[in-house]
Amino acid sequence: MKILIVGGVAGGAGTAARLRRNDENAEIILFEKGEYISFANCGLPYYIGGAITEREALQLQTPEAFHARFNVDVRVNNEVLSVNSAEKTVSVKNHATGETYTESYDALVLSPGASPIRPPFDGIGKNHVFTLRNIPDTYAIYDHIAAAKPRTAAVIGAGFIGLEMAENLADRGIAVSVIEGADHVMAPLDGDMAHLVHNRIRAAGMGLYLGKKCAGFTENTVLLESGEAVPADMVILSIGVRPETAFLAGSGVELGARGEILVDEQLRTSVPDIYALGDAATVTNLVSGARQVIPLAGPANKQARIVADVICGKKAAYKGSIGTSVMKFFDMTVAAAGEKEESLRAAGTAFRKSYTVSASHAGYYPGGTQMFVKLLYSPEGRVLGAQIVGGEGVDKRIDALAIAIRFGMTVYDLEEMELAYAPPFSSAKDPVNMAGFVAQNLLEGNVELFYAEDVESLPEDAVKLDVRNPEELAELGEIPGFVNIPLNQLRQRLDEIDLTRPVYVTCQVGLRGYVAARILAQKGAKVYDLSGGYAFYNARRTDLAGRADKGGNTCAACGMQITR
Amino acid sequence: MKILIVGGVAGGAGTAARLRRNDENAEIILFEKGEYISFANCGLPYYIGGAITEREALQLQTPEAFHARFNVDVRVNNEVLSVNSAEKTVSVKNHATGETYTESYDALVLSPGASPIRPPFDGIGKNHVFTLRNIPDTYAIYDHIAAAKPRTAAVIGAGFIGLEMAENLADRGIAVSVIEGADHVMAPLDGDMAHLVHNRIRAAGMGLYLGKKCAGFTENTVLLESGEAVPADMVILSIGVRPETAFLAGSGVELGARGEILVDEQLRTSVPDIYALGDAATVTNLVSGARQVIPLAGPANKQARIVADVICGKKAAYKGSIGTSVMKFFDMTVAAAGEKEESLRAAGTAFRKSYTVSASHAGYYPGGTQMFVKLLYSPEGRVLGAQIVGGEGVDKRIDALAIAIRFGMTVYDLEEMELAYAPPFSSAKDPVNMAGFVAQNLLEGNVELFYAEDVESLPEDAVKLDVRNPEELAELGEIPGFVNIPLNQLRQRLDEIDLTRPVYVTCQVGLRGYVAARILAQKGAKVYDLSGGYAFYNARRTDLAGRADKGGNTCAACGMQITR
Repeated sequence: MKILIVGGVAGGAGTAARLRRNDENAEIILFEKGEYISFANCGLPYYIGGAITEREALQLQTPEAFHARFNVDVRVNNEVLSVNSAEKTVSVKNHATGETYTESYDALVLSPGASPIRPPFDGIGKNHVFTLRNIPDTYAIYDHIAAAKPRTAAVIGAGFIGLEMAENLADRGIAVSVIEGADHVMAPLDGDMAHLVHNRIRAAGMGLYLGKKCAGFTENTVLLESGEAVPADMVILSIGVRPETAFLAGSGVELGARGEILVDEQLRTSVPDIYALGDAATVTNLVSGARQVIPLAGPANKQARIVADVICGKKAAYKGSIGTSVMKFFDMTVAAAGEKEESLRAAGTAFRKSYTVSASHAGYYPGGTQMFVKLLYSPEGRVLGAQIVGGEGVDKRIDALAIAIRFGMTVYDLEEMELAYAPPFSSAKDPVNMAGFVAQNLLEGNVELFYAEDVESLPEDAVKLDVRNPEELAELGEIPGFVNIPLNQLRQRLDEIDLTRPVYVTCQVGLRGYVAARILAQKGAKVYDLSGGYAFYNARRTDLAGRADKGGNTCAACGMQITR
Repeated sequence: MKILIVGGVAGGAGTAARLRRNDENAEIILFEKGEYISFANCGLPYYIGGAITEREALQLQTPEAFHARFNVDVRVNNEVLSVNSAEKTVSVKNHATGETYTESYDALVLSPGASPIRPPFDGIGKNHVFTLRNIPDTYAIYDHIAAAKPRTAAVIGAGFIGLEMAENLADRGIAVSVIEGADHVMAPLDGDMAHLVHNRIRAAGMGLYLGKKCAGFTENTVLLESGEAVPADMVILSIGVRPETAFLAGSGVELGARGEILVDEQLRTSVPDIYALGDAATVTNLVSGARQVIPLAGPANKQARIVADVICGKKAAYKGSIGTSVMKFFDMTVAAAGEKEESLRAAGTAFRKSYTVSASHAGYYPGGTQMFVKLLYSPEGRVLGAQIVGGEGVDKRIDALAIAIRFGMTVYDLEEMELAYAPPFSSAKDPVNMAGFVAQNLLEGNVELFYAEDVESLPEDAVKLDVRNPEELAELGEIPGFVNIPLNQLRQRLDEIDLTRPVYVTCQVGLRGYVAARILAQKGAKVYDLSGGYAFYNARRTDLAGRADKGGNTCAACGMQITR
């Protein structure tokens, strides 16, 4: 059997390795149009920032070592130009020799990846405007910093690569501005969770431009459509990627609207004996059921095993993805899995949501930090999505929630998860359990919730109650219009509350508010607890104030007009 | 409704709080025989060691604050002496006044906990011999260290509390010896995983006495049954706990052989309207199906919610526990969930096992550490147990595996888990995925494994092959009798291997050995890959050599006699 593989990074190299383990006798040729195979694409920003110091560290395998280990004919600098599926051949250009040749296949595996989008902005061709996909891109940025010594930089597009680059450029002493065309950074998050990231970006001293689109570049600025000019001696353009599938024109391989390769669960394309995986191929979104591209390293690596097994006649399927993702941004960890509220609303999917704030480990053991958790679930309790922003232990909790989402578990299952507890690691009620408890209380009708975005639009006759202690209000701030009665005095001071009116309760994170809500509800009041409490409210308020400092903005999450 | 609760720590206080949230009108009385309620029992060693500096930090709630918040009648220093279930009353002694009185109940909740075992060793009454259960015990140890300035200490019984105390005493500058009656420390681990902990104990400069039983105490030694005298100006006795249920004599509440309270999934005892939870009550072991006591904080906290809901007529059940646990020991994290090999063997349960060694995060990103993973699963693939020893990220991976065990998932599900990946947090193939991949390879017959404990007893005619690079052998050590052919040269040097004989392959952690095994098997050889590779072999060898230094020992795991 002769197998050709297009693309030598995670998907392609992984497929080759598994194919060889499956079949010592297959002929395997791996085409990579660039110079490097199997490189650490997720590590590239950290070489630029200096956390990774050795260039060799970015190369996980050399072509020579890969050949020695797996007996795979690795052809770097060889670009597949076209596929003739009728004759089962590909046309290849050897960029080292300039020669073009034809290679036949029994099976063809497509793992071409996706390339950064470079719109025809005015000045896009200037040599201080970069994208980041591969090792040559990385060296180019690194060498430019060394040579040109930029004092300012702009990152356009605040997704994973954009924000990782923002941090790493800041680590090099460069003053960074972050420009994002959408209303909030980090597309896997909802706007309300992105408040926390916005606040951290500003706290890092970076400029933050939200809902601002790029118009072009001068030598030392990014020009925005709004007319603003953002200082930028260098630019990282990270507004998204597009499947690199132009070479499939005429092949008969069916593509989607954005050029993505349509595959089934066996990673088979529309053409027999042609398979595809990785950032250019579709997967099933396991929550929504949609077929879509989810360009992440984890799925690509798993798909590599599966496509190799399918080709070798084993029973295997890639069932789909939930897009679990995580990002470090200075001391902050940002993570998400499954669907977000914005997507659920767009699709018209019924959902419930709750917010919790939990310590990463037992409060009495030093060094813990708070994490902000948003949980989305169906009215029946199935977990649909989760987002967490915090520090230590965020990655751990998104993993537990990702397992719940991936395997169709419910908020009741979150309650029952028996997670490892000792004071340095967690609390006896882990943040994941807590998210489950709160969701259960909502679904079972033990409490009704309101949300930070509702605070400005509460009913005229609402009783607004803050049950924190006065010291907390003084130290942490308060919500205008909320009357303070500490929880531990509530039963004695019930006569101060008009229980015939709707009561809106807050505390710091929502737990004491829940206890207060239970007391008041059992006294006959209609009560709502602020989900996530003052902590979430304050994150939102701080972000909106930060936006206002830039001269006015509208929050797309809530529609609120911010003026100074 | 009038509800009495016996015991004011995690189980009792949690029950009271949830009862109140459920029912604002219930009469709730909480009896605690000690001075404190709701204290941080898992944090006590860290106060002694100095990580926790405030005495107040150990008290999560005072009786006064708990009353103010939950309107619960908290009676500290009030000990329930007996239960009259026919009359539905308890007899209580107020230790502050000396008075004894009777209190009636509609429902009675028993959460008395378990107390440290203190066998009648010679000298057990000496004032430098301590156990650790509560805040007064903690202060006594702390104050003794301050006053007597012990230079040496012995910890007898190397479970969680024992090893946490060993670390914390060492943090106070005391030379610690660890004495364990069993063959290995940390009962949740198998002996082969405990090798790693033994090596860490010795690396900390501590004396380690395995398989040694205490006979008694002098002022500055622990006398062992073997005749040895271990230097110890102070002693922590942590050989286990026993349910504190003597007060139930005559109550009709059915107890197990060790005094544990037998309950069902609704936490009901054998007597109507009497419930029990926490360290004194049985739970279902969700892997073995046995009813047993699993004294951990996580289950107790969850049971508190459930017993309160059951009493209030809600549908709720505590389905059981898998005993997920984790411990910090200096820079090492030790974690386990589900069954261990020793228990599966004792029960005659069929199982398979594999070992993996994985980096905590991407190797090219700085700061990662290696974790050693043992996975146990049924021949059909259901995950039965997991043990991990390492540093960063061990707690995260045991949580993922605990979810798999708790919800009856398989090794194939581990493969499919979509866990969050970015270089600072994990690898594209997470250690949990890797454990799944390796297990799948074993179950599907892609590879046969052998284990570190088999190395000395391989067949006479075995070909023994180490496929690491020569530099690794020189730097890390080698296994006597194994011939070195680096993996990348294997195909060229096949003629050096007699493929008609069984071939036993090792590498550093088992991955290259697997590739070699696939090559050799496809050439017709019968091949076995050393599971976990040289890394596990070396952990075992190092531990056995350390035991030999103490003058000879027998490994109960393998039966091997160690002589110097």
